[in-house]
Amino acid sequence: MTTTDKQRIAILGASGYGGVEFLRLAWEHPNLEVTYCAGHTTAGEKMGELYPHLPPPLADIVLGPIDVGKAAEAADVLVFCLPHSAGMDMVAEAYDIGKTVVDFSADYRLKNVAEYEAYYEVAHTHPELLPTAAYGLPELHREEIVGSRFIAVPGCYPTSVILALAPAVKHGLVSTGMIIADSKSGVSGAGRKASLTTHYSEVNESIAAYKVATHRHTPEMDQELGDLAPGSEGDEIKVTFVPHLTPQIRGILSTCYAQLAKEISLAEVYEVYADFYADEPFVHLHPLGKLPATKHITGTNRCDIGLAMDERSGKLVAVGTVDNLLKGLSGAAIQCLNVAYGWEETTGLPMVSCWP
Amino acid sequence: MTTTDKQRIAILGASGYGGVEFLRLAWEHPNLEVTYCAGHTTAGEKMGELYPHLPPPLADIVLGPIDVGKAAEAADVLVFCLPHSAGMDMVAEAYDIGKTVVDFSADYRLKNVAEYEAYYEVAHTHPELLPTAAYGLPELHREEIVGSRFIAVPGCYPTSVILALAPAVKHGLVSTGMIIADSKSGVSGAGRKASLTTHYSEVNESIAAYKVATHRHTPEMDQELGDLAPGSEGDEIKVTFVPHLTPQIRGILSTCYAQLAKEISLAEVYEVYADFYADEPFVHLHPLGKLPATKHITGTNRCDIGLAMDERSGKLVAVGTVDNLLKGLSGAAIQCLNVAYGWEETTGLPMVSCWP
Amino acid sequence: MTTTDKQRIAILGASGYGGVEFLRLAWEHPNLEVTYCAGHTTAGEKMGELYPHLPPPLADIVLGPIDVGKAAEAADVLVFCLPHSAGMDMVAEAYDIGKTVVDFSADYRLKNVAEYEAYYEVAHTHPELLPTAAYGLPELHREEIVGSRFIAVPGCYPTSVILALAPAVKHGLVSTGMIIADSKSGVSGAGRKASLTTHYSEVNESIAAYKVATHRHTPEMDQELGDLAPGSEGDEIKVTFVPHLTPQIRGILSTCYAQLAKEISLAEVYEVYADFYADEPFVHLHPLGKLPATKHITGTNRCDIGLAMDERSGKLVAVGTVDNLLKGLSGAAIQCLNVAYGWEETTGLPMVSCWP
Amino acid sequence: MTTTDKQRIAILGASGYGGVEFLRLAWEHPNLEVTYCAGHTTAGEKMGELYPHLPPPLADIVLGPIDVGKAAEAADVLVFCLPHSAGMDMVAEAYDIGKTVVDFSADYRLKNVAEYEAYYEVAHTHPELLPTAAYGLPELHREEIVGSRFIAVPGCYPTSVILALAPAVKHGLVSTGMIIADSKSGVSGAGRKASLTTHYSEVNESIAAYKVATHRHTPEMDQELGDLAPGSEGDEIKVTFVPHLTPQIRGILSTCYAQLAKEISLAEVYEVYADFYADEPFVHLHPLGKLPATKHITGTNRCDIGLAMDERSGKLVAVGTVDNLLKGLSGAAIQCLNVAYGWEETTGLPMVSCWP
Repeated sequence: MTTTDKQRIAILGASGYGGVEFLRLAWEHPNLEVTYCAGHTTAGEKMGELYPHLPPPLADIVLGPIDVGKAAEAADVLVFCLPHSAGMDMVAEAYDIGKTVVDFSADYRLKNVAEYEAYYEVAHTHPELLPTAAYGLPELHREEIVGSRFIAVPGCYPTSVILALAPAVKHGLVSTGMIIADSKSGVSGAGRKASLTTHYSEVNESIAAYKVATHRHTPEMDQELGDLAPGSEGDEIKVTFVPHLTPQIRGILSTCYAQLAKEISLAEVYEVYADFYADEPFVHLHPLGKLPATKHITGTNRCDIGLAMDERSGKLVAVGTVDNLLKGLSGAAIQCLNVAYGWEETTGLPMVSCWP
Repeated sequence: MTTTDKQRIAILGASGYGGVEFLRLAWEHPNLEVTYCAGHTTAGEKMGELYPHLPPPLADIVLGPIDVGKAAEAADVLVFCLPHSAGMDMVAEAYDIGKTVVDFSADYRLKNVAEYEAYYEVAHTHPELLPTAAYGLPELHREEIVGSRFIAVPGCYPTSVILALAPAVKHGLVSTGMIIADSKSGVSGAGRKASLTTHYSEVNESIAAYKVATHRHTPEMDQELGDLAPGSEGDEIKVTFVPHLTPQIRGILSTCYAQLAKEISLAEVYEVYADFYADEPFVHLHPLGKLPATKHITGTNRCDIGLAMDERSGKLVAVGTVDNLLKGLSGAAIQCLNVAYGWEETTGLPMVSCWP
Repeated sequence: MTTTDKQRIAILGASGYGGVEFLRLAWEHPNLEVTYCAGHTTAGEKMGELYPHLPPPLADIVLGPIDVGKAAEAADVLVFCLPHSAGMDMVAEAYDIGKTVVDFSADYRLKNVAEYEAYYEVAHTHPELLPTAAYGLPELHREEIVGSRFIAVPGCYPTSVILALAPAVKHGLVSTGMIIADSKSGVSGAGRKASLTTHYSEVNESIAAYKVATHRHTPEMDQELGDLAPGSEGDEIKVTFVPHLTPQIRGILSTCYAQLAKEISLAEVYEVYADFYADEPFVHLHPLGKLPATKHITGTNRCDIGLAMDERSGKLVAVGTVDNLLKGLSGAAIQCLNVAYGWEETTGLPMVSCWP
Repeated sequence: MTTTDKQRIAILGASGYGGVEFLRLAWEHPNLEVTYCAGHTTAGEKMGELYPHLPPPLADIVLGPIDVGKAAEAADVLVFCLPHSAGMDMVAEAYDIGKTVVDFSADYRLKNVAEYEAYYEVAHTHPELLPTAAYGLPELHREEIVGSRFIAVPGCYPTSVILALAPAVKHGLVSTGMIIADSKSGVSGAGRKASLTTHYSEVNESIAAYKVATHRHTPEMDQELGDLAPGSEGDEIKVTFVPHLTPQIRGILSTCYAQLAKEISLAEVYEVYADFYADEPFVHLHPLGKLPATKHITGTNRCDIGLAMDERSGKLVAVGTVDNLLKGLSGAAIQCLNVAYGWEETTGLPMVSCWP
């Protein structure tokens, strides 16, 4: 089924990086029409005052309040670009009145309420909706997304890690007991809020690990990879996840390590990956012997993957890279809308990065 | 007159930064079809080997030799992305056999042969074609470009300086005797050739002036601004041009200083500029009190301009910024083709930059 | 006269970039002993909590309150690293009780009270002390600094501009009516306070002009260059000063333009500069044909200068570069203390930068 | 035993990054005197032409040929900053005639000739000297270095990995069967040679893995950690080592993962590390809960270490960071000379980094 009418879009939280990137993409999407933009502290301001790179008419958009009623009046699709828990009830409200909702936060990603509440330290007010929300990774959940009215956009780190490991886990090539994801992220992942952590003078020419094995994106990786594992009950994978802050604006590169579960050559592993992603428009497997860099994909909705092996110790090394604001967030949201409404999946999404 | 058939494109010099950027833009342009890509030392190689960020089918393009005959067989439009003088004769040959030619080099930009030969230290072999070539800055030469078969794409620095000063010069607001252009360029302007000048460890965390008052882009500024000056014979402007190498990949910001020729308020100057560029799709004048940054326009074909004044000394300060590989090169080429063939001028050209 | 006793140092405002850089230098200076560090909002905290790069024992320093009495009890020299006007009265108090004071702010730099009050929009409470304070640029004011108990450390931008132009102005080589200083500064000049202006994602890969012809450092340049001009009453130079924010941590490069006042060759100008700075340990004139880059001097107390000329229009181009936190601030303070106390002027000051 | 005479230093390969950094440090070292600098293709040139940041008298040093005889005539200590195998015979020659030799290459680091020959693809011409060369990591080999005339300076990556893991391996806290080192390096580690890999436009805003599990520094890690393992024959550790190129000039951060061999708390592990490094001047263990960043140590000879644990999967995460040109190369060489000659170990080595 394909929806041919233009869908009207409300962006709640349009003044953050995810929101403004979604605005840019939606603005040029042939099937979307942005009809409402809202901000919390920025209501009443013009987008051009907040973002001087925006030319008219984008610059002239006046932000309204973050209000489901007003948004629902103006739009068919409500896109919530809010911090976790801030939009939890509004998302439910919008869904209940029949709107299509896209949630950038983590609120409806985890199927296990207890995990959510433990990692996010807040009670979940709408656990009944968790089974309804599709995890917005079409490469693994395309069927659930088709026709869905409720998309929970995955975290940026999980997208890079899950796609890098999915074929190996699903086909039982690696042991589920030892999976390490060492991720390197650009600074934009921390959002627009000014802080020492995002201060140019403090983060340029510097790399640091943070939130070792405690980052909130960890349970998403466990959930999605656990579900893929053969014979799994979905609870046996515990990814050791260590994110790093690195001096680049955009881009996540995740180097994933897993113990091979059987004797297999790199060429054979490569074939498994090539088959797994054969029809995926946004997953690009680099040739054997080559590895992707973040710069290969920034500005695009791609996830590039490269494979290598440590034959001495029997380890698979799978590298996945995404632009944290595109395939890692706003681009994924567009891709899911394309799938949900039956449009060509690549509509309105850049495929080739500017170089250099 | 509008050409409705798709034009077939040959890119001669597709393995440089200008060429690969033109390829990206042309590939997604609805009226263009890339049918031939050629390289000098890279003939026989695949684009994907040279540029691992390119996904298939772009990655699979095999470069042919730089040969006008082969290119002319395959294409209607020959785009020469070669260093100055390297393509001088081929450009003439292609034009003579009736093809549309777009020249990225400086060979056909300067109307004064002596200036060209003095700055480029090479004899011009086709001075008879100089009057034929349109200087590819639609904001000043749109009428010549319409229907033209010969486009000389302007230099990146001149585009930023000329557009920043054109309204003031044309309306006699500034004295022609004292014009300074202090330009800051990203490293990609130096091309893909590896050298100490482009070595990350040498140019990161560093800013340097170079080729002070001797850079080859200087006579373009003199020519274009000189032609605009009221009552001018085109020879009275001598811009003091100082380029700087700065630690960013893309982007030129030119801060231009000129002595005001009469008493005039900044608001009045602003009105002159606003009128001058009122219908220009790619020139964006920032509001009074605001100034553009390179990041506002990288990835787009825009030239953003901001104005200020030193009232103490009667000087106009006009800031112009372009992406050196878009409005400063490949994007300008596409814009000129749009104008030449009568297509919507903005076709296939990005207007809003990714942020951040 | 040389002071052989170690001088005890109090740093008021040790938690800012200027303060922590002064702490590093003073700590390793053979004639200085840091005995008191103070912070405003950070009193009670350990330096190591604020600055995790500091190893013990520096990490273990506990900040006291910003209090002249406590500082005076602990130290001989009080170094005020506070924003303009915040320490104005304390500086006077410390001087009055017989301490040596070093002021990083602009409060005692300008001899003209009206200029200060106009630019800084605050009343000056101690104009009587202005003639007492030595402008801390030994290259121009060494005799005043020798034995002085009151050093007003120059602004970072003025140091680069004044030193780049001083020989030409003093020897009447350039017209005083047209002086332009186009300065490019690293982000650390904006201090440690987090803001959009210092947000990595907003300022990386970007260059922007700001405060065109209105920056507060302008009157310092006018004052110092005006005083040097032959036959000057000190009021005839009005520098057109345009600062730019650039994506580097440290370093200022100022490209200065001035109309030559007479016919003179570049080699002759060079000789004037070489003579002027012949005995200056921290001014390094690059050979004719070469120009300095910020990276040449970051991490050192040097000011490097390069010269060029636009012969077509009779303009001198003088490039001056300093590390804004060393020769532009904390290093200058140490240099002045060396001069004031009669120590070897280069004591404790780095001369060679790390490369790369 | 302490040598009180100044040692005269010859630097063979002074025009590379390691050489010029060693020159800077040796120049300011109270016990060293640089008397001979040599280059291969650069013989006859002045240092100031190659490195315009060098002021006189460093700029005026004229490079001689790379010749052991000439170097031995001028100096007591010959420092070889040459690529692997290029200086292999010269090092032996210099040692044989009684000079002290410091070798920056890998030629004399590995005790196992076969490993060397397999990884470096060249025959070793002086295996008889391997037992003589001290592996220049004082933290593990101080006794061998004292009084030694032959120092093989460790690789930059190994230093960060070995020091991060040594206490855990030596005390049997971790299983030797699963050790992963994910290292992030600045671009200067690739040397000064211009290439696409070091081209600013290609590596800025990008992170990439390279030489996965095949990098030549791997066997050093195996050797040193293997020797530490309790009951080890030195051959049982096979580190899975994945280096990454990251957009910073200097600095390596290695995130090391190892399976805990027994139940132990993070606090207990921390105590083991604190004891192990209690007397080490250059190893700085960050407080529990804090992790080091490369910026904390660039410009210094420190190795900073931080510890964390993934309690869900029983893994130790140890982060080690060094400046690849200081503790990772030239600084280590100075430190070893200090130890070898009985000087204070910290002499002439920076301890506190510039911030920011």
